Formats: sequence, C-alpha cells, structure tokens
Amino acid sequence: MRLGVCYYPEQWPRHKWESDARRMFELGIRRVRIAEFAWSRMEPEPHRYEWEWLDTVIDMLAQHGLQIVLGTPTATPPRWLVEQHPEILPVAQNGMTYNFGSRRHYDISSEVYREHCARIVGQMTRRYGKHPAVVAWQTDNELGCHDTVPSYTEAARVRFTQWLAQRYGEIGALNDAWGNVFWSMEYRRFEEIGLPNRTPTDANPSHWLDFRRFMSAETASFHALQGALIREHSPGRDLLHNFMGFFTSFDHYEFAKSGLDIAAWDSYPLPRTEVLWFDDDVKHRWARSGHPDIPAFNHDLYRGVGNGRMWVMEQQVGPVNWAPYNPVPTAGMARLWTWEAFAHGAELVSYFRWRQAPFAQEQMHSGINTPDDTLTAGGHEIARVARELAALEPEMVAHASTPRPRAPVALLFDYEADWIVQIQRHGADFDYQRLVFEWYSSLRAMGVDVDMLSPDADVSGYRLVVAPSLPIVPESLVAQIVRGDAWWLFGPRTGSKTRAFTIPATLPPGPLQAALNVRVLQSESLRPSLRPRVAIDGVVGHGLRWRDHVEPGAAVNVSAAFDDGLPAVVEAGRVRMATACFDDALLRALLAHSARDAGIDTVSLPEGVRMRRLGGLQFAFNYGEVAWRANAPDNARFVLGNREVGPADVAAWIA
Amino acid sequence: MRLGVCYYPEQWPRHKWESDARRMFELGIRRVRIAEFAWSRMEPEPHRYEWEWLDTVIDMLAQHGLQIVLGTPTATPPRWLVEQHPEILPVAQNGMTYNFGSRRHYDISSEVYREHCARIVGQMTRRYGKHPAVVAWQTDNELGCHDTVPSYTEAARVRFTQWLAQRYGEIGALNDAWGNVFWSMEYRRFEEIGLPNRTPTDANPSHWLDFRRFMSAETASFHALQGALIREHSPGRDLLHNFMGFFTSFDHYEFAKSGLDIAAWDSYPLPRTEVLWFDDDVKHRWARSGHPDIPAFNHDLYRGVGNGRMWVMEQQVGPVNWAPYNPVPTAGMARLWTWEAFAHGAELVSYFRWRQAPFAQEQMHSGINTPDDTLTAGGHEIARVARELAALEPEMVAHASTPRPRAPVALLFDYEADWIVQIQRHGADFDYQRLVFEWYSSLRAMGVDVDMLSPDADVSGYRLVVAPSLPIVPESLVAQIVRGDAWWLFGPRTGSKTRAFTIPATLPPGPLQAALNVRVLQSESLRPSLRPRVAIDGVVGHGLRWRDHVEPGAAVNVSAAFDDGLPAVVEAGRVRMATACFDDALLRALLAHSARDAGIDTVSLPEGVRMRRLGGLQFAFNYGEVAWRANAPDNARFVLGNREVGPADVAAWIA
Amino acid sequence: MRLGVCYYPEQWPRHKWESDARRMFELGIRRVRIAEFAWSRMEPEPHRYEWEWLDTVIDMLAQHGLQIVLGTPTATPPRWLVEQHPEILPVAQNGMTYNFGSRRHYDISSEVYREHCARIVGQMTRRYGKHPAVVAWQTDNELGCHDTVPSYTEAARVRFTQWLAQRYGEIGALNDAWGNVFWSMEYRRFEEIGLPNRTPTDANPSHWLDFRRFMSAETASFHALQGALIREHSPGRDLLHNFMGFFTSFDHYEFAKSGLDIAAWDSYPLPRTEVLWFDDDVKHRWARSGHPDIPAFNHDLYRGVGNGRMWVMEQQVGPVNWAPYNPVPTAGMARLWTWEAFAHGAELVSYFRWRQAPFAQEQMHSGINTPDDTLTAGGHEIARVARELAALEPEMVAHASTPRPRAPVALLFDYEADWIVQIQRHGADFDYQRLVFEWYSSLRAMGVDVDMLSPDADVSGYRLVVAPSLPIVPESLVAQIVRGDAWWLFGPRTGSKTRAFTIPATLPPGPLQAALNVRVLQSESLRPSLRPRVAIDGVVGHGLRWRDHVEPGAAVNVSAAFDDGLPAVVEAGRVRMATACFDDALLRALLAHSARDAGIDTVSLPEGVRMRRLGGLQFAFNYGEVAWRANAPDNARFVLGNREVGPADVAAWIA
Repeated sequence: MRLGVCYYPEQWPRHKWESDARRMFELGIRRVRIAEFAWSRMEPEPHRYEWEWLDTVIDMLAQHGLQIVLGTPTATPPRWLVEQHPEILPVAQNGMTYNFGSRRHYDISSEVYREHCARIVGQMTRRYGKHPAVVAWQTDNELGCHDTVPSYTEAARVRFTQWLAQRYGEIGALNDAWGNVFWSMEYRRFEEIGLPNRTPTDANPSHWLDFRRFMSAETASFHALQGALIREHSPGRDLLHNFMGFFTSFDHYEFAKSGLDIAAWDSYPLPRTEVLWFDDDVKHRWARSGHPDIPAFNHDLYRGVGNGRMWVMEQQVGPVNWAPYNPVPTAGMARLWTWEAFAHGAELVSYFRWRQAPFAQEQMHSGINTPDDTLTAGGHEIARVARELAALEPEMVAHASTPRPRAPVALLFDYEADWIVQIQRHGADFDYQRLVFEWYSSLRAMGVDVDMLSPDADVSGYRLVVAPSLPIVPESLVAQIVRGDAWWLFGPRTGSKTRAFTIPATLPPGPLQAALNVRVLQSESLRPSLRPRVAIDGVVGHGLRWRDHVEPGAAVNVSAAFDDGLPAVVEAGRVRMATACFDDALLRALLAHSARDAGIDTVSLPEGVRMRRLGGLQFAFNYGEVAWRANAPDNARFVLGNREVGPADVAAWIA
Repeated sequence: MRLGVCYYPEQWPRHKWESDARRMFELGIRRVRIAEFAWSRMEPEPHRYEWEWLDTVIDMLAQHGLQIVLGTPTATPPRWLVEQHPEILPVAQNGMTYNFGSRRHYDISSEVYREHCARIVGQMTRRYGKHPAVVAWQTDNELGCHDTVPSYTEAARVRFTQWLAQRYGEIGALNDAWGNVFWSMEYRRFEEIGLPNRTPTDANPSHWLDFRRFMSAETASFHALQGALIREHSPGRDLLHNFMGFFTSFDHYEFAKSGLDIAAWDSYPLPRTEVLWFDDDVKHRWARSGHPDIPAFNHDLYRGVGNGRMWVMEQQVGPVNWAPYNPVPTAGMARLWTWEAFAHGAELVSYFRWRQAPFAQEQMHSGINTPDDTLTAGGHEIARVARELAALEPEMVAHASTPRPRAPVALLFDYEADWIVQIQRHGADFDYQRLVFEWYSSLRAMGVDVDMLSPDADVSGYRLVVAPSLPIVPESLVAQIVRGDAWWLFGPRTGSKTRAFTIPATLPPGPLQAALNVRVLQSESLRPSLRPRVAIDGVVGHGLRWRDHVEPGAAVNVSAAFDDGLPAVVEAGRVRMATACFDDALLRALLAHSARDAGIDTVSLPEGVRMRRLGGLQFAFNYGEVAWRANAPDNARFVLGNREVGPADVAAWIA
Repeated sequence: MRLGVCYYPEQWPRHKWESDARRMFELGIRRVRIAEFAWSRMEPEPHRYEWEWLDTVIDMLAQHGLQIVLGTPTATPPRWLVEQHPEILPVAQNGMTYNFGSRRHYDISSEVYREHCARIVGQMTRRYGKHPAVVAWQTDNELGCHDTVPSYTEAARVRFTQWLAQRYGEIGALNDAWGNVFWSMEYRRFEEIGLPNRTPTDANPSHWLDFRRFMSAETASFHALQGALIREHSPGRDLLHNFMGFFTSFDHYEFAKSGLDIAAWDSYPLPRTEVLWFDDDVKHRWARSGHPDIPAFNHDLYRGVGNGRMWVMEQQVGPVNWAPYNPVPTAGMARLWTWEAFAHGAELVSYFRWRQAPFAQEQMHSGINTPDDTLTAGGHEIARVARELAALEPEMVAHASTPRPRAPVALLFDYEADWIVQIQRHGADFDYQRLVFEWYSSLRAMGVDVDMLSPDADVSGYRLVVAPSLPIVPESLVAQIVRGDAWWLFGPRTGSKTRAFTIPATLPPGPLQAALNVRVLQSESLRPSLRPRVAIDGVVGHGLRWRDHVEPGAAVNVSAAFDDGLPAVVEAGRVRMATACFDDALLRALLAHSARDAGIDTVSLPEGVRMRRLGGLQFAFNYGEVAWRANAPDNARFVLGNREVGPADVAAWIA
C-alpha cells in the first residue's frame, strides 16, 4: 500500500525539480511516474538524444527517497518522425487519415513505427534499466485511447491477412468458417481480404470478430515488443501498462499473457459516471462522488487481469476536463477512492497529477497542486491518507496479508463477448458491459465480494460463478461445471455463438447443453416498452432488452416463467440460466436466490454503502449522503474511522 | 394464390437438397426462388463457370413438383471482379468509396460493371431460360437498398451530363430551366456539370431533381439490360424485381415501363414499424404485429406499379435482424399477413427464408426452419395456410376471380413528390410518404378499399380520387378532372412546382387552377407546437406542419377556415383542397365527408381491424387484441374463419 | 432613416426593370443593392466582360431616384474559374473538398482566388466607382456563412505558418507560448505546423486559438483587398459588408479596422429564433414575431462594430426558407422590426428581397412581391412605414439627432471569448453568446439601453460596464477600471486565460486581480441538474453550468454565497464578479442591484415589451400579445402611435 504520483518534470522549470521532489516525499508519496510523452525532449531531432535532463530528474527523485516508474514515450511520436514517415499516421473507420497535433497519432500496425519504438525504448532501457531507483516500467500510455484501436491502415490490412493466413492455413477454411458463400463473399487468396470498414451494409460478423481479435493481438504485440526490451535491459523491475476503465478494444487477459507483471489502470470516477449508460437521474445522484461501483468494478477486473497484482496508476483527485460536465468532487472522495483501491488489492495508488499544467490540452485537469503550487483540496486528502497509512500500516499489512481467500463469487468477464455484442447488437440498447455492471452492482449492493475472471480461468474454490452473458462458451468451462461443485448462473445470449461467430449446430446454448439441456429456438430483442412480467421469490419484475425462447429438455426445471408462458429462468442441478435481462429488483431477487443456494450470506446495504474484505480487514465505504452505522460485530476493532461511517467516509475493522 | 420460399442451396451441404425439396412440397410450397447472390459459385474465377451444382438443384426441385424463380446474382459481384475493376465500387454522398465485404458494392452507372452483368446474366439465361421448371426471373435484389442509389461516382457524373444533354439539347435551356443565373451557377457546356453533392450549402433543387430522375432512369436501365436478355433467352417467363416497402429512391412506375411483368416486393412488417416515422407509443402498440396498414399500403401500391400483378417475394415469418429492436411476432401473424396479401391481389406469397443461416450477416434472421431443421412457429402457420388454401382454393378462385372492380377510391402516389419534398423539405417534419400513409390509413380505418396509382394513370371509373400532396400536377390530370365525373381531394403543396422545380408562373396550384381557381400567395411550415384550429362537420382538429395561404378566386367556396381566418378547405364543384396537413381526427372528417359526397359508404372499424374485398370475397383481418364480431350480412357464407374474428385472426365470406 | 431593397435584375427579364424601378420609388424605397452574386453575368467567360446590362440597370435605377449599393460578386466564383483552378475550392474540417454548385465554394486563403477577386473588383470599381448614383459598396456576401471560415486547405496551412512566423519570430517562442512540451508537440520549424483539424483527440487549444485568429485575419484581409480597390476607384462612397446575426467566426472589430465605414447586417428574426439555443417553449412563444431581443442585440452590437454607423442590409419581410420551420410572421412585424432598427440607430433598413425568385435555392424565401408581382403582406407594411417616415421625418430627425448620449450601460462583447469557449467548452452547455444574450435580455427587460463594445474600447462615460464572461482580460481594461468611476460587473470564467490560452500565473482572474483581489482555485462545469442555490436581495435562484471556486483576498466582500458556502458574488469597491451563470430571476436581481448602485433607473416591462431611446425620442415596441399602456409622461407628445401600444405595434414620443 503505497502512494504515488504522475509527474512531468520536462513541463516545468528546472529550478522547481528539487522542491517538487522534497514536497512529494513530505506529502507521503513514495513512487513517481515520469517520462511518458517526453519523446521530443529525449530525441529532439532524429538520432540526437538528450538525456541529461532525465538523468538529473531521476537522480534527484532518488535522492529524495522516491522510487521511479518510467514510462516509454511512444504514445507521442514527435513531429519529425511523422514528417519522415507520414505512413505511420492512423486511419479512422471512415477512411480519414489523422494528423499530428495531439497524441496517439500512430498506427499500431506500422512496422516502421514499431522499429522507432524499439529504438527509443532500447535507448531508454539501456540507460536507465539498472538504475536502483527505477522499480517499474510502463509501456506507452492508455493503449487504444481515442478510438485508435482498431486502426484502418494499409499496414493493418497487410498484417491482418498474414494473421488470418496463420490462423486458417487454407483460404477455404476461412471461407467455410466465415460462411463466405453468403453474398458471394468468397476469397481466393488471403491477400484479397480487406478490412471490414466502409462496406455498403454490415460486413460479415465473422470478418469483424477476427479483425477485432487481430487488433487485440496487435495491441499486445506492440506492448510485448517494448516489454521484451525492458525485460532484457531492466531485469527485476515490474512491467506494467496503464489501462483504462470500461475499455474493451483489446482483450486484456491476452495482453497480460504477452508479458505483464501488474495490471495498472487509470481511475476517473466522476467523468466515467457522466459518460456511461446511466439514466440522467443516476448521473445526477452520483455526479460528485462517482457511481459507487465504478472504481470497484475495475479494481476487481484488473486484479483478475493482473493475476492478483493491481495498481491504480492515475487516480482522480479533483475536477477533470474530459466529460461533458466536470464538477468538483465531494470533499473526502479522493481519500475514499484511495482506501477503496487498497481494500480491493491495489499495491499502489498514484495520483494524476503532481501539479495542474497551465497550458495545452489538459489545463483544466486539476492535480495535487494548483499551477501556482497551492495544495488542492484533493492534495490535503492525500496528506491525510498518508498519515493514516503511516499510523496503521504495520497492523494493516499484517491483517491484509493473511492469505487472501478468493471472493465467494466469481464473475466471468469476457472481452470477446463485448465485441460480439458490438458487432451484432441486434437490440439497440443491448450493452454487454452494462449488463455485467448491473450484475456486479447487484451483488455488491448485497455486500458480496466478487472476483472477475476470464471464462478460461480456473474457478475452483468459488461457491458461485456468474456469467451475465457468455456468447462463446469454452469447452473448458463446461468441463469445470461438470466436475466442480460450484453453483452457476448464466444470463441471456449465453452459448449463442461459436468461436467463428456462427450459431452452434445444436442451437444455443451450444456446449453448455452438456450441463443444461435446453435449446434456444429463437431470440428476440425488446424495445424498452416491451417488458414481459415475471416473479422470482415473490418479487415481481420485468424482462428487458432481450429474450431467448428456450425449449427445456429432460431434467430441466422452469423455475420462473413470463406472463406469456415463456421460461424466464431454467435450471438443472447447480446450473441456472436467465433467458432475458432483468430489471434491478428482479435481478437482485435472482442473484440473492442464487447466492442463498450457494451458501453465501447477503445483506441489504443502504444506497451508496459498499463493503470489501481484505484479508482479516473489513472495509466499508459510504458514497451516500447519510451516515451509516456499520454492521460490524460488537467486538470489532476499528483501525480506520469508527462504527458511524459518515458521507464520503471510510471505516475498517478487524473482525 | 400460391406459396413460395426463398432458398439458397449453395449455402447448405449437398446431402440436404433432396430432403429440403421434399419437405417444401409437403409443406405446401410450390415455387422456390434461388440463385440470387450466388455469383461466386457460378463463376468462382474470371470466365470459369461452374453450373453443375445449379443444374442439380434445379432438376431436383423440379422433380419434387416445385417451380423455380431464378434470381440474377448481380447484387453481389465477387471479389475478383472488384480486384480487376475497383472503379465499379460505389461512392457515398460524402465522397467515401465503399469497400468489398458485404453486398451492393457496385456503381449502378459503371459501364464496366454493366458489361459483366450482361455476361453472367447471358450465361444464366442461355443455360436455364427454357428449363420447363423455370417460370420467372428476378433481376438483382432490392435495387437501391443500403442507400446505393444514388451513387456519386465519376461514371455517374459522366452519364448524368449525357442524360442532361439529351434532355435539354442546349446548355442555355438547362441554365434557364434551373435558374442558374442565381448565384452565378451558369454552365457553358454540359460537361461542366457535376453531381449535386458536397456543396458548401444546398445545391440547386432543380439540379437535385434532375439528378434523382437520372438515377431513377439508371436503375431502370440497369434492370432493363438484364430484362432484355431474359426476354430473349427465356421466352414466356415472368420478369420481375423484388422491390422494398416504402422505398422511393427510383420511380417504380418508370421502372415498370422498362420491362416488368410482376411487381414483387419484400414484406417485413415488424422492422418496418420500428423504423418508420411513428411515435413511440404507436411503435409499441404494433411492435409484435406490425402496423395494420403497412403491408396493405405496399400491396396496393405495388399492384398499381405492376399494372395489376403483384407478388410478395419475401415474407417475414419470424423475428428478423435489421431493425433497432427485433421482437418475435404474435402467434398467427405469419398466417394473417399471407391471407391479407392474397386479399390484396398477390398471386404468390414467398417466405424468407427456407432455413435460418447459422453464419454471416443474416444469422439472426429467422425462417421457416431453424438452422437445425426444426419447423419454426411461423413454419407451422404456413402449413396451416397451405391446408386452408388447398381446402378452399377452387371456391375462392371462383369468387376471387370475378372481374375485379376498381376500388372506390384512387390514391395518387408520386415518386417525384417524395423527391421534391426531400430536396426542399422546408419544414423539418414534412414527410411525403408519411402524409400519404396517413391518408391511406384513414381511409382504410373507414373500411374503404383503395387503389394506388401514378398521377399519370387513367382514373376513369373511380368515384373519388385523392392526392395527399402533388407538387407537380400533370396537365393530363387536369384534363381528367375536367372531363370526368369523379370527386377530387387534394392536400397541401399541390401544384407548388413545375417539372423544372420552380414555382408556377401563376403561383400554386399552377395547372390545377383550371379546375380550382385559387392562388397560394405564400406557404409556411409549422413547428409541432404551432397548430391552428379548424372544424370540419363538427369535428375540431388542427392543421399541422404546413399551410398554404390560399386566395380563393371566383366560384371557390371556403368550406372550412382556421381560427385565424385563413382557409383550411377550399372547393369548387367536385374539386376540393386541404391547405394544410391535418391531425387524425380532422383528416378522418375530411375524408369521410369527401367519401360521402362521392357516394362511398364508410364504416368505423375498431382499432386494428381491416377489411378488403377480392372479387366476390370479403376479407377481414384483426391486428388488434380483442375479438371483433364481423359486420358481415346475416346470410354471409364464411369460407375462412367465422363471424368472430379473434386477435391475429382472419375471416372471409361470400356476400 | 432610409428604406432600401435587395434586387437581382439579372434574374428577371429586361422588360421588368423599368417598372421595378418605378414601383420601388413609389413604395418609398430610396436605395437598392445590386450585383452581388452576378459574376457569371459580368464575366461569362474568362476575361470576356459584359457590362451593358449592368450599365443599363444602374442608369435606370438612378433615373428613378434610387441610390445604389453595389455588391462585389466574389461569393460566387463562376464555374469556369473553378475549372481553371480547382485548388480554390474550400476544404471541410473532416478533410472533404467541397464542390461547385451552390455558393461560397472558395478558399478564403487562396492567393489565386484573391487575384481573381482583385481583377473583377478592379473592373467593377473602375467602371462604376464614380457613378453619381453609386453611394456605397458591399464586399462579397455574408463572409464565413455555411461554415466556410475556417477553411482547411493547404493554402490556408501555408499562410497560417507564415502568420505564425510573423507573430512569434522564433519557433521556440511558439513552443513555449503553446506549451508544446506537453505530449511532445514541439516543432523545429514553422513550416512543420499543420492545421489543428483531424487529430485523434483535441489539438492544443493554443493551436486552435491562433488558427481562429489567423482565419479571422484572413477574412479581414480578404475584405481589405477589395476595400482598397473600392477606396481607390470609388472615393467618397461608403464601404460596408453585410454581416450575419450571432456570427463569430471572425472578430468583427478587427475586420472593421481593416477598412469599413458601416457595419451592415442581415436581420432574420424568425429563423434565428428557431435555430438558437432557446428551449422549445421559448421558440414557440416567439415563433411568429422572433424573440424580442434578437434584432436589438445585433443592432447594438453592430453599432459598436461600425463605430456608430449601422445598417440593416437584409431585413426579413415574410416567411423564409432556411430554418427547420419557417412560419409566416405576425401581421405588423415587418413594420415593427423596421422602426426598431431605426430606434437602435440604423441609417438604412433594406429588405430582402424585391421579388421572390421562383427558381433555385431560395425560391421559398418571400420578398416584397410575389413571383407574379403581387405586393405581399410585408410589402404593404413597408409602404406604411414609408408613409410614416415621410410624415414624421423632419421632426424625428430633429429629435433623433440631438447628440446621442451613450447608453447608461456598456456590455463588453468579445469574439475571442466565444472562440475560447468553443475550443474548450469544458461544460457541454456553456455557450458564450447565450450567456451574453441572457445578460443583455435581462437588462433590456428592465428598460435599460445598452451599448455593446469591444473589451479594448474606451468606456469612459458609462455608469455601468458589464462583461458576462471575459476569459482574456486586457491590461487596458484594468487600467480603465482603476482610473475610471464606472461600476463594473463581471461573470464567470473572467480572467481565466492569457492571450496564449494558458492559465494566468497568478491564477484567474489574472490581471483583474489588480482591481478585485481574488484567486480562482478551481472551476467546475455543472450538469443541468446540479444547481447550487443562492439568494440576492431576497431573490432565491440557482447557479448554472459553471462555477469558479473563488478565494477572496483582502478587502474583498462575499456579498452572496451558495448554500454550500462557496462565494456566488464577490466585490471590492465598484468591481463585482459573479462566480457562476445564474438563472433568469437571479440574474435579474444581480443586474438590478448593479444598476441601482450605478444610479441607473430600471422598470419592469411586461413580457415582449421593449424600449429604446434615440436622441430626444423614446420608442416602445410590443412583441407580445396584449396591448401595453406605455409608461410615457403625462405630457409626452406621441409622434408615432399612441399611449396604447397594441400587439406587434410601435409607439414613439418626445419627452
């Protein structure tokens, strides 16, 4: 549990560096991320490197007791590189080539650009890789941001055809897999295959899905190229990337397999609340605190991606600049978000940024200090966290590091599921991430801790495994269902597709039929006004957005049916499936029922209160506006706060 | 009255063909459309043809008693053709060139592409044109779909200038007709003229209108090129094209004149209801049945286009894939839609499709069979229709084929009217098709049968002719008004434009002034909140969207006036004109009054009930949710259903 | 106080010219604008000029007592010029090149095009510059209309880099000013700099702001090129341009400095009401009269731009064609708008257009005559104004031309402020012009006359100066605050930026701190549902959209605070600042309080009633629907109308 900060020394006069370093340490910060975006200062002209300034900064930070996370600057190729190689510019889906003048103006598939990245990262890692203060490396910055993955360049097209050739071997295999006989889309050679954009009507969904997979692999290999150099020249340091919240342009599990020690992510609860799918009243309700499940959802997901190791690389501390509306957070939230990250397993919480830049694109993005070096409200909260950490850390570490048990519930999050739904939404309001978030949020409001996992993961040890939707059901998962003793709950569209984006030969849910003997004869998307009624455990609610018309086979029980007689929930043994999306009340009833079956206790937390267990510590967080009297045992020993958890406040106890 | 089906044998393993053919016949299907989209299987490489598979399919279908409709595959040029001739790709209005990878990726004006179409159609027609089982040919598929007409290529531009040269002879004539002196838009030569897209502000509406006419002619000539080959090599077979519902990118009357025996159309009531202009509550009301006037509107229109001969080439039988929301139809609708098509004169109702494809773009489009060959709910309804047809056909044919009288009302539907409104909408919510549909729907809800006709058509024999809006009034129409004895009712914007898209010299309604002596001094578009009040026959309602400020001349009576004194309805003898769009109640009152004048009986049908007379048979259809006791005479003999017409049910009687 | 008209003789047969001239004069019109857009008739082929028709028209108009305003035709380069030089076509922000076929299809930065403009304007001015009837020249037409400023051509890019080189001298100075170290955006040479469009995410706001300034300068220099020729060849004539309402694509103050005698603008109250930011109920309320502050706002602004001299070059007289909805104005409005323009200082009100064109793009735009030469309703109102003017003019001139005192209130309107907000809106609903309009409207509803001025203007003599928002505070303004005795009221975001688009080193309000010792520690944008409460003088209202969190320094008084304790209004001496946008009631209370402090009387006018003093004359205008008994002194002498001011009516008295 460490505090960190993002720092851009190149943006400030040299005379500020020392006081910055000293003030960071005094504030309680122990790690500093630097150097990302600074290519034009490392190599102001082709092959002319300037390292003196960075040597100085690194030594100075080290002298003040700060450890360093070095970022590679490849998100911002300098102007001269674009001049030499305009072909590295990315291309939008409509065919428009982007220009220099902001960031991420490069094609992830450009081999020329990859060579230049290898060159600059090679230089950096050879120079700083073994510096004792350098403890970690971050590649690039927020890969895929600003919709730059996928990119639609000719370089991408060529590499895509190579990737396909490798995957399918023979062009006939690809034509068969994609069903290219449909609409005479058959190819004679891999080289004939184009990108799936700019077609008069939808391109083949199989074409899209493979393109998404390819682009995901490209992203991972772009990272891996740098990762290999870092491993080579900077042994023993942690390798990480700073991912974004709710971002699915590539498969983060696959990315992690390409070489990653820690899944770091950038946490901006307020703008995220504003831009997600919430209704306006929900956005209003959490406008100044962020929706209470937004940070935790990503903590739990990235903990899964990082195989247990997770950082918050950038943590919002005050108002930011990129949402449609950017209010000031409620006093206390910077502290609450920090503690909550720790409670969900973050090893580091690093704030963005040390000082608000008075110039350029992010000048309305606040930080720990104002441009004139006044500590901000958020900065004061960080100081408080640092004091709390210092006072408690030995005790907390002891309790938090008791072998962390798995959470009682595993939630399967699948990147391909999101791509599949985006490619063929079928119902305009069907959003995979939204559905997953609703399930997650429902469990969290019942006080249940959740681990988020890939559908390929080993789920042994979990009492309940839930998959809000899982279009492609891996065979390995079916095997785990059959041989394990967990309870399972699946949502709509499960098993609806093969890996090739076709309907399974035995109809959905395909391989899952081995565990749940039903057939989906047809599926429908439902306009918001079409809401078939159903009751679960006396709770009356509605099906929404989607409905699978299920024909139950032998030994399958229809445990809830819609008012028109169609099955709403079917089950066989420990396996249960909801055939539709459910409204909040109904979903809560379904999940509570499933938790009960699995022997998991649930509570009904007040709006905005969330809990999380970390080893022997029980945390509670109050996003709401009224104080909450914590449901701690009488003999609970509070190590943070007390039994009365006020608005925007935190408590933790040993119990 | 025959049943048909759309079948893509190339998409299925060869071993299924025989059982497919047998099961089709057993289900009651007698005609099968095949081969559209199969170019890559007919000619997998340039000039290498493969016909064996198609020979086999045709013979096998024939052996099982099935007749064949052959589709030409020109909606899907194969990849190799695009590779040889990338210039055949179409261009969007914003200048973006489309890519291969879906369908309709060709420029209708490309002479190179036309040559290749002639080649493949020549091959097909020579090979199969005289096969005894081949009874009809469909050219291409849904010409203009996915906004591919108009196309904005250089080839289109060149042919457009040639078309203009032929139309105007001298460039000065064009400059005068378009009023190009305005904004110095004058041309010196036809070759200087560009396409009307990508201008900083609106291009000249005359420029647009001629471009739309040109593109309409291009579409017809593209069809005619294939039609000529079909006529030559396949004598005696019916030539058709499968049109779409509510589609106006080209003038279907003109298209029909280019060579067409039957106007076939593709009927998808549910998605159409979802994407049209209806308010959300209307979309909800008919989400599972389709709006009750959507199929009939198109049946009546295409019967007019086909000069009496109309097919439904593709009939929805279950949930489809292309609307924002795609629910499952109410049980019974597939049967109801089929009978309703017959009642409106369809010779064939052909379902889309035999079996749901588990791959590619339309995998969520259901059919008669699931991908694993289970008969769907819709399939079962088709089987019922087939049984009903078999039991009744001789009797029905006898009664249905009594010389079909014209409907009492002719409704004039004009494609150019739609283009004119699209080119210069003037009021953001003025939609020509919507206005026509409102008039049609109002008449149908009063139990009145309607024929839809071109404004150039001979309307003798009709008691009432209505034109919801007719910007260009043909002189021939005025002659019919003057010399005939029908009653006439016109709506707003009538006579507002010359053929050149200018205001008539004597002001609107231009030529109609010979029959109705008024001048429109100015017109206004009305925001939805501006709704002037008016009463007709005691029914108080409102003018909407548009209002012509009419100055009545001698012998013209203002039979209804708005609350601000402006005329709402003017009339002289048998000619009446509404100066505005009216709300539903007011429109009903106007049409009822006009029907009464013309001696036409009206009834007030319950919501969702529709009737249609076919020769000696009276049909009734119940789209609603409550049973209706049919208004049949006491001695009516029911040949289908009975006096109690339940929801989603049908009745027919002899009276 | 003269009446004028816009006339396009080239669009009409020659035989109409004489009767047109005669009828204009008889109607009371004294000035006619001609020739704009007529390039293809002046120079139908390269270097072949045809002047005979224009000679004839000018002489004929002169013979009928009409004075002439000549428009240069450069808004409509003819087809042959585009053929010779396709590089003159403009390019949209997304990179799309526009086509010939409407108007404004030229790149304002094209040197080739500028040469051709100089050539045609040179020809015109040499031929007609000294004609005694020619009294004024209008350059081009509505520069920037249809989003043609900025343009994104290569020519613009080259000139932009030259402009930057001149402004910054050294590339290092530019890099420093823009903060290009951020995201490695540093340039090595000016030639490397591109346009700020098509970047993957936001370009540097400093880049955008300088690009906007450059484009503004380009617009002015495009005008100035023509202006110089006019000055040279047509001495003593007025030089003007017809600006648009609420149009900020260039800085009109700077434009005026490039050479302008009169700021003329085009007044279309109805479509403007429909397209501005108003809520739907407001749009409905004023759908047929236009919002009562729309014309006056622009009169007062353009009077400031024109340094006291203002014309209405185009005045709406009936329904037009370019808004989403285009209703007919209420009877009386054409007259009311005319008198109101005079009351606000217009020297000329010129109507658009003499006769409605029955062809081309504007055929649905009405005029004084219908296409068949019937005087329209608006035409009759103009005749009435002409009679009123004739009867009253000597008396009115006497009273109106008493030395016009400055209005009591100066409102600072800043074009750069609008650009800054557009470049970095921060809150989605923050609209600079809307905010200014709300302040203006609030003052006008209290009967207060307003002058609108540049922030660089000399404000001595004003009792109250208000700046609804002023991101860049000029040093000269601070000097005026300190040394003057006016009261000052500033709104949010004031002083938030330097000229380089960075945050001031001392934090906002930057230089204003010399007069108001506060620091803005952070700012927030507020979603519409976040509305902190505050009361001013007992009026309870809400802060909206934006809030500066202000830390008051010594001698600063917080005179109103939000319910969460943050300052809402801070003041020191005669300087006051609101930290947020306010709702209507609150804004009214703030402005009333400020007016009271400054010794300015306010009244509460009924909805839709507006007043304006012109010298010794007091005007009143009633946009509302109920008659208003004017608040004139008992001894007031009415020279227009009387004490009872009916709907759509006007009164003026000497008091």
